[in-house]
Amino acid sequence: MKKILFLSLFLPAIIHAQSDDSVFIHQLSNYILSSDSPYNDLFYLTKRIGGRLAGSPQMVQAEAWGAKTLQQAGADAVFAQACQVPHWVRGGKDKAAVSFVTNGGQKQSKAIAVLALGNSVGTGPQGIIAPVLRVKSFDDLESKKDSVKGKIVFYDVPFDDTLVFTFRAYGKNVIYRGQGASRAAKYGALAVLVRSMSNSVDNYPHTGSMHYTDSLPKIPAAAVGLRDVKYIDSLFDAGKAVSASLFTYGKMLPDTTGHNIIGELKGQDNGIITIGGHLDSWDVNEGATDDGAGIVQTITILRAFKALNYQPKHTIRFVLFANEENGTRGAKKYAEAAKEANEKHLFALESDAGGFTPRGFSLMAADSVIDKLNSWLPLFKLYGVTDFVNEGAGADVTPLYTLLNTPVAELRPDSQRYFDVHHAPNDVLENVNIRELKLGAINMAALIYLIDKYGL
Amino acid sequence: MKKILFLSLFLPAIIHAQSDDSVFIHQLSNYILSSDSPYNDLFYLTKRIGGRLAGSPQMVQAEAWGAKTLQQAGADAVFAQACQVPHWVRGGKDKAAVSFVTNGGQKQSKAIAVLALGNSVGTGPQGIIAPVLRVKSFDDLESKKDSVKGKIVFYDVPFDDTLVFTFRAYGKNVIYRGQGASRAAKYGALAVLVRSMSNSVDNYPHTGSMHYTDSLPKIPAAAVGLRDVKYIDSLFDAGKAVSASLFTYGKMLPDTTGHNIIGELKGQDNGIITIGGHLDSWDVNEGATDDGAGIVQTITILRAFKALNYQPKHTIRFVLFANEENGTRGAKKYAEAAKEANEKHLFALESDAGGFTPRGFSLMAADSVIDKLNSWLPLFKLYGVTDFVNEGAGADVTPLYTLLNTPVAELRPDSQRYFDVHHAPNDVLENVNIRELKLGAINMAALIYLIDKYGL
Repeated sequence: MKKILFLSLFLPAIIHAQSDDSVFIHQLSNYILSSDSPYNDLFYLTKRIGGRLAGSPQMVQAEAWGAKTLQQAGADAVFAQACQVPHWVRGGKDKAAVSFVTNGGQKQSKAIAVLALGNSVGTGPQGIIAPVLRVKSFDDLESKKDSVKGKIVFYDVPFDDTLVFTFRAYGKNVIYRGQGASRAAKYGALAVLVRSMSNSVDNYPHTGSMHYTDSLPKIPAAAVGLRDVKYIDSLFDAGKAVSASLFTYGKMLPDTTGHNIIGELKGQDNGIITIGGHLDSWDVNEGATDDGAGIVQTITILRAFKALNYQPKHTIRFVLFANEENGTRGAKKYAEAAKEANEKHLFALESDAGGFTPRGFSLMAADSVIDKLNSWLPLFKLYGVTDFVNEGAGADVTPLYTLLNTPVAELRPDSQRYFDVHHAPNDVLENVNIRELKLGAINMAALIYLIDKYGL
Repeated sequence: MKKILFLSLFLPAIIHAQSDDSVFIHQLSNYILSSDSPYNDLFYLTKRIGGRLAGSPQMVQAEAWGAKTLQQAGADAVFAQACQVPHWVRGGKDKAAVSFVTNGGQKQSKAIAVLALGNSVGTGPQGIIAPVLRVKSFDDLESKKDSVKGKIVFYDVPFDDTLVFTFRAYGKNVIYRGQGASRAAKYGALAVLVRSMSNSVDNYPHTGSMHYTDSLPKIPAAAVGLRDVKYIDSLFDAGKAVSASLFTYGKMLPDTTGHNIIGELKGQDNGIITIGGHLDSWDVNEGATDDGAGIVQTITILRAFKALNYQPKHTIRFVLFANEENGTRGAKKYAEAAKEANEKHLFALESDAGGFTPRGFSLMAADSVIDKLNSWLPLFKLYGVTDFVNEGAGADVTPLYTLLNTPVAELRPDSQRYFDVHHAPNDVLENVNIRELKLGAINMAALIYLIDKYGL
């Protein structure tokens, strides 16, 4: 009886709260799905500014655009937080070809699609021309270490297509992009080619950051498009001796100053909630998916809160992070400054897995937080999110977890299309579906609203 | 105690079954995600055969390809089931322009992107040139009925963008494409233009079937691309009198013979399970999403069952249905033949909502069936399906429900991208993500496997 009484007293309040919340989230959804701003914002960022690697003139333009746009979207305050960022430049048009001797004794050459990896040194205009050694893993490299000297090492490690969540395949293979050059340089390689980090069926090469081990020679490194990988494989599989020429021009310039661009919606209580994406992108594309989508979602949520006249309990920070791609210096700066200022951070949410249709959220947080969020799932289901999992968050919010123990999260859109465009020339506006991007923003806005209202 | 005993006796068996099932479904997934056949099949159907409207030479090619491919995929038997199909031809290149008089008194014209609606009569080479009457609904048409005579009526009814599930927006608006011509002809309209059934941001017109009311004059009808709709709206909103010229050449030829192409995997028990998609498409595109995806998924499931040496309990029919687009004659024939032959149909599943990332299944079935399927959800979650709902099934399996009371279902992929390409020239191979298509096939295969094993 007591139990029944308890229920009858409290149940209406719970139902009422859920119903208020679902009404507000529905209003957010209606506003966002009807708005032209997300498309217009993404159009400007991709088509008017374009690729915006840290240190580039486009970085400066994007920062100015971001500040102006947050202002116009209705932020109570907008400020720029300076940080030193690396300044790598591609320096020229990357070029490569492979060649072999036909059965008839003729040398045959074919140009292949390549992009120098970010942070890599260039070959210079004289290029590097050398025999190619194909390896299938670092173990394979070790077993062939006596044959590496004077060669171009080709890391030919395909994505594991059987992994449904494509980020797992990326996670397994990205070490070849990151460390492949130094591991091969150790045995005297002249350069490395790396199979693009992708499971697409086209031929775009996918760049991305690499880093050198300081004690080893720095050698050039480039990613190869997957159709050309198939071609090279066909030569090796036919027993040919394959050579390659590679021309890249990358160089590191001195660090320069970049900025996190931050808009605030002031809350009445103490405490800060962060939403963000990263403003930089690679230089070879428009950075539409990576991470124009996250930037536009962040700004869209501000617009939606303002349109619905939402008065947050806590201060909500809309952060356009600097330099995620080859340094995460913006993210580090943001967390360090928060720690120094002794700010109280309740929660931070990032979108950097593309503007694809939302599936869930992933967090770094206590299990009790995950349980609480999962209790809110019925409020999300209509908009596509069906789970909260404790499997890590994005690179731009993770420092808040590390330094301040803030629960951090990232939107998990469907992952099938991400590595079709990631760091490749086809990461352009046309490959973003604006309704999918908006659905991501709706779920993010709903999560921020619920956490602002109920805490964690 | 009794309860505990019951649990301890039965639980291991249940767990064991689930674990066997999850292992088998994982094998299906690994096979399908690693296979090149889905891409190769879709490539042939879209790039070698292309658009394949009922009655066209490409329909005949597609039927032959379908039979051969089912055979090579390992069907125990392949047969063609003849049916009479309508034979509409576009007859020429559709063309239109709108014009108005500028403030300076000059006539200004602009070509607009149009496609005649399927089954519509043509204007002939002399075209129709007339003032345009814009209406926002059938109610609006009725209120303006005295102004309709001698005009081209323009149905300008946007998709409701606030509906997350885009098929609901389509469901609300498609009546203007289907009935708009006759409703306007009733009041003396000369032709109709219909805003394309889409929420895309590009300018492709989206064709699709329309039908005439026999007692009313048959007038030409065409769909207009959405950017041009914006342009026309800007003229009306500026108070201009707008005229249009329209040139279309459609005509109905006598019915001809088409075929459902059916492959069977024989079961040991009595009873049939059907999986299918439709082989026809509109004439203006490659029919990659609509419904090349469903065809390829159907064939892929057969390939996967054969690769894993699956011996079904019931006969599984892989059906490439004829003439879904403008008649569903294939579907009717299949159900009628099943009824005449007194076949026992356990279940039928269709894929005709695109090869996009899977979300769930929708059914027409008793609630007990839905409950049973939902109890299997943990087996699907890894592959993207998170619910079974009782909200109808596709046009090709519904006649089995109507005639034989067979539970029928359709795959529900994410709906955001479907109306970007539906019935439009951009429904091409390049707009299909082959991994998303494969995930759909995995979930379909898993469902067929579970129903074959456990019944409904």
